[in-house]
Amino acid sequence: MAEPKENALMEKIVSLCKRRGFIYQSSEIYGGINGFWDYGPLGAELKRNVKELWWNTMTRQRDDVVGLEATIIMSPAIWKASGHVDTFSDPMIDCKTCKGRFRADQTGEIPCPQKPSKMVSECHGEKTAARAFNLMFRTFVGPVQDESSVAYLRPETAQAIFAQFKNVLETSRQKVPFGIAQTGKAFRNEVTPRNYTFRSREFEQMELEFFIKPDEAVEAICGTVATAAEVSEAPPSAPQPSTLNPQPNWGWQLWHQYWVEERIAFYQGIGLPRTTLEEYWQKPEELAHYARACVDILFKFPFGTQELEGIAARSDFDLSQHARFSGKSMGVFDEELRTAWGKLPKEKQDDLWRRYYENRKKYLVKMGVAEELASKNATEDANGLAKGQYIPHVIEPSAGVDRLILALIANAYSEVTETDDKGKSETRVILKFHPRVAPVKAGVMPLLKNKPELVKKAHEVRDLLRPWMNVYYDDAGSIGRRYARQDEAGTPFCLTIDFDTLGEKPELKDTVTIRYRDDGKQERVAISELLNWLLPKVR
Amino acid sequence: MAEPKENALMEKIVSLCKRRGFIYQSSEIYGGINGFWDYGPLGAELKRNVKELWWNTMTRQRDDVVGLEATIIMSPAIWKASGHVDTFSDPMIDCKTCKGRFRADQTGEIPCPQKPSKMVSECHGEKTAARAFNLMFRTFVGPVQDESSVAYLRPETAQAIFAQFKNVLETSRQKVPFGIAQTGKAFRNEVTPRNYTFRSREFEQMELEFFIKPDEAVEAICGTVATAAEVSEAPPSAPQPSTLNPQPNWGWQLWHQYWVEERIAFYQGIGLPRTTLEEYWQKPEELAHYARACVDILFKFPFGTQELEGIAARSDFDLSQHARFSGKSMGVFDEELRTAWGKLPKEKQDDLWRRYYENRKKYLVKMGVAEELASKNATEDANGLAKGQYIPHVIEPSAGVDRLILALIANAYSEVTETDDKGKSETRVILKFHPRVAPVKAGVMPLLKNKPELVKKAHEVRDLLRPWMNVYYDDAGSIGRRYARQDEAGTPFCLTIDFDTLGEKPELKDTVTIRYRDDGKQERVAISELLNWLLPKVR
Repeated sequence: MAEPKENALMEKIVSLCKRRGFIYQSSEIYGGINGFWDYGPLGAELKRNVKELWWNTMTRQRDDVVGLEATIIMSPAIWKASGHVDTFSDPMIDCKTCKGRFRADQTGEIPCPQKPSKMVSECHGEKTAARAFNLMFRTFVGPVQDESSVAYLRPETAQAIFAQFKNVLETSRQKVPFGIAQTGKAFRNEVTPRNYTFRSREFEQMELEFFIKPDEAVEAICGTVATAAEVSEAPPSAPQPSTLNPQPNWGWQLWHQYWVEERIAFYQGIGLPRTTLEEYWQKPEELAHYARACVDILFKFPFGTQELEGIAARSDFDLSQHARFSGKSMGVFDEELRTAWGKLPKEKQDDLWRRYYENRKKYLVKMGVAEELASKNATEDANGLAKGQYIPHVIEPSAGVDRLILALIANAYSEVTETDDKGKSETRVILKFHPRVAPVKAGVMPLLKNKPELVKKAHEVRDLLRPWMNVYYDDAGSIGRRYARQDEAGTPFCLTIDFDTLGEKPELKDTVTIRYRDDGKQERVAISELLNWLLPKVR
Repeated sequence: MAEPKENALMEKIVSLCKRRGFIYQSSEIYGGINGFWDYGPLGAELKRNVKELWWNTMTRQRDDVVGLEATIIMSPAIWKASGHVDTFSDPMIDCKTCKGRFRADQTGEIPCPQKPSKMVSECHGEKTAARAFNLMFRTFVGPVQDESSVAYLRPETAQAIFAQFKNVLETSRQKVPFGIAQTGKAFRNEVTPRNYTFRSREFEQMELEFFIKPDEAVEAICGTVATAAEVSEAPPSAPQPSTLNPQPNWGWQLWHQYWVEERIAFYQGIGLPRTTLEEYWQKPEELAHYARACVDILFKFPFGTQELEGIAARSDFDLSQHARFSGKSMGVFDEELRTAWGKLPKEKQDDLWRRYYENRKKYLVKMGVAEELASKNATEDANGLAKGQYIPHVIEPSAGVDRLILALIANAYSEVTETDDKGKSETRVILKFHPRVAPVKAGVMPLLKNKPELVKKAHEVRDLLRPWMNVYYDDAGSIGRRYARQDEAGTPFCLTIDFDTLGEKPELKDTVTIRYRDDGKQERVAISELLNWLLPKVR
């Protein structure tokens, strides 16, 4: 995998992002801070658009997902339950000679600070054995700074959703299957942040936890758990990008497949062609112990094909952990299951009971619960089925905002070389963003800035569009220069107010020229029709 | 000032917020964490709406403000320059007997942990002298945890704007006067978080830094600096809520007044009546040393009249500090000033030079720069005027999102008592949010859930509205119960699909009943007109 500095396209992207105000190094005037990046005016708009589209698609457009906005600092008990306190770490070695600290798996690539001609693994410094270095940022809450006041900056947004699952369930009138969505900052004290904004220490996530019935409950209610083939032919009840249409008889496999399709459709809908994306189905040996399946959606970045989002089927692991650590029930009551269970033949009941029992027991034993206690607890859990009780399973589509922004910029980046009348060539950049994510939707330009009638009309057009979309008013320089500036900012449409707008050609009165970013083509549209023309394209 | 627990209205609000999923205690299943609050499904939508309205009003609707999204963890040098490392602290005393730590100014109000019958100030514990306790959360960046890797969670979003001022200026095609807006999380390790979400340890800010020319530059360019009376009669060039219309001859006082009016208009525009707001002009002795004026916009909370937003005229203090600490210039070049300066009579030049020089020197001496060096540097600064150079001054409207959410809920909270046919009374809650901020804009309800034609039509209405606003589909229970549920969530309109919609009364075919939250009145609107009817009300 090429590092950005060795990568010509990445160099151009980094330079453009700085020059046009998409991305700056954090704290640049103080020499920067490694692994932290700020979004400038265009970047902030691009990022807002992406987050808004995700939120709308994942929550507002659906009956079965609600939102949450939890804090970054939470009780440290949450990270104990999730396993982050104990296992979210990199192995590090210390060099007693140079006092440096290095990732144990990278000592062969890092030059010795004292003898840079040798790698750390080859130098003569006296090194400690590898020790776990936790990637969570620590801080202290309250006036006293000791172990009792330690807290962490969340390394992911997901855990807050599990911790608030019962509150949301009880206050939102949702029933399983349903989801809880959240966007927000997360923090990982990466030892080696790299690839520009791709792997940074402060980043933003967009995560959905979609809670579903365990397969045993689905089978009790519906008789069988559907396989893909059975349902793909069912007609969808509402328009949706996935070819799959959720059905009551879906188990975790179909829900997982559904969310993979939904998420790929989302990326396509904001302008990433299918050919730039790859699906990577993790192999059984790569899966986390609690995961039943995990699909990574990858994008072909200039520095390699890398993950945009992971979609994991996490079983009932997370809610079970929080139930055990908090002592609070994370179970739900399902009237349908209770009713259905009573009507099942004894044989079927026994079969479902046994399968549920075995899954529960397997989880408990894996978590270190003693065999006997695990059997007892799993028995209680399985007995719950008859009463309509279970712990929901979860499908987790988890996306990184910053890497998606970088993917959108990399995908949009293109250059055009033009030769003027005097034979002079110039290469300039066009950012071909999908209009939905473009930071500015329309540039509004009077042909000349010193003609008050043109300026007045251009202000009218600006004020007409502005309540509905982000527009940029520009009256400085030649119209060609202004178009080029908007091309570089990724603005899909430029509207020019000229003398025809004022009625020089009577048939063109009160029309504007719309000039397309990607091919430079132009057409005339009546001002009265502008909103109808633009809105469906930019939303 | 009454504490929430002693306040019946606050108790009701806290209870409603939990019950309906506006606000939960963070990490509640683990006993909570003091000073941290999560937003549930309705709260998350309310908060998103408020932030979006602020962003649109402050940036997208204006030519002269751009956005920024900076990191929470920045170089610690920023907090050295801003003064936070040295002075952002509360005085604390330790008790050697009980090991408690207390705010020095609150020992008369806090019971002794060992003898709660006495206050800390009266008990016999042996106490230390008061020491400064910094309110910034500390953490460590990178693998080594020592003083060289200390970083802070930002205690305000503003400083990132100053630190990136030059980057934004150079990449955004803006000229002074212009502003940079930012929303985001900030953190203060409050010793005693209180009043529900009003004073919490993790909170969100919406801050604008609006950069203006120093008065000396305005006077050089325009001849005089306008006073309020002169401009309030000028006709505005574009529709705007303030009665003031920015002019080139405005100095800091008019810009400050302008932003106070704009911000009050914003609050009125999202439903806080003028009578619930107060303006508090800080007295000269209350001002921070660098501030020329500061107005607090206060809201009458149930627990007292408290600050929603501060609007400060901060002179050129912030940019000057970052210039001194980073060694980077924070000055701008102003062609207008350079041209105007050359045409000024020598006497006027000398007068402006002297005033600018004195302001700069006063600042430098106050910051501890030795007299001689301060004179030298101030001379250089004042010499810059002739070259069109100066450090911009700034007006800072700084608002807290969480306290605004609390204000909106408190203002919206109302109760109605209804008596049914059997003489049974019931008191229920109506949240009278302005439709612009309401979490759900419209409830969509088929009269009966077991009539497929009604359900199908209701789905059509839901799918028609959903791309444009957040709607809630509800088919469970009596229509009266469903209305009551939406009243309590603050949904301004409920749309009912009934048999008339299906054509039982032919003249009402394809119309729906719109029922108003606040007075229960109803009217019929054609489905084809629904979007036109709703959109102007909810945007």
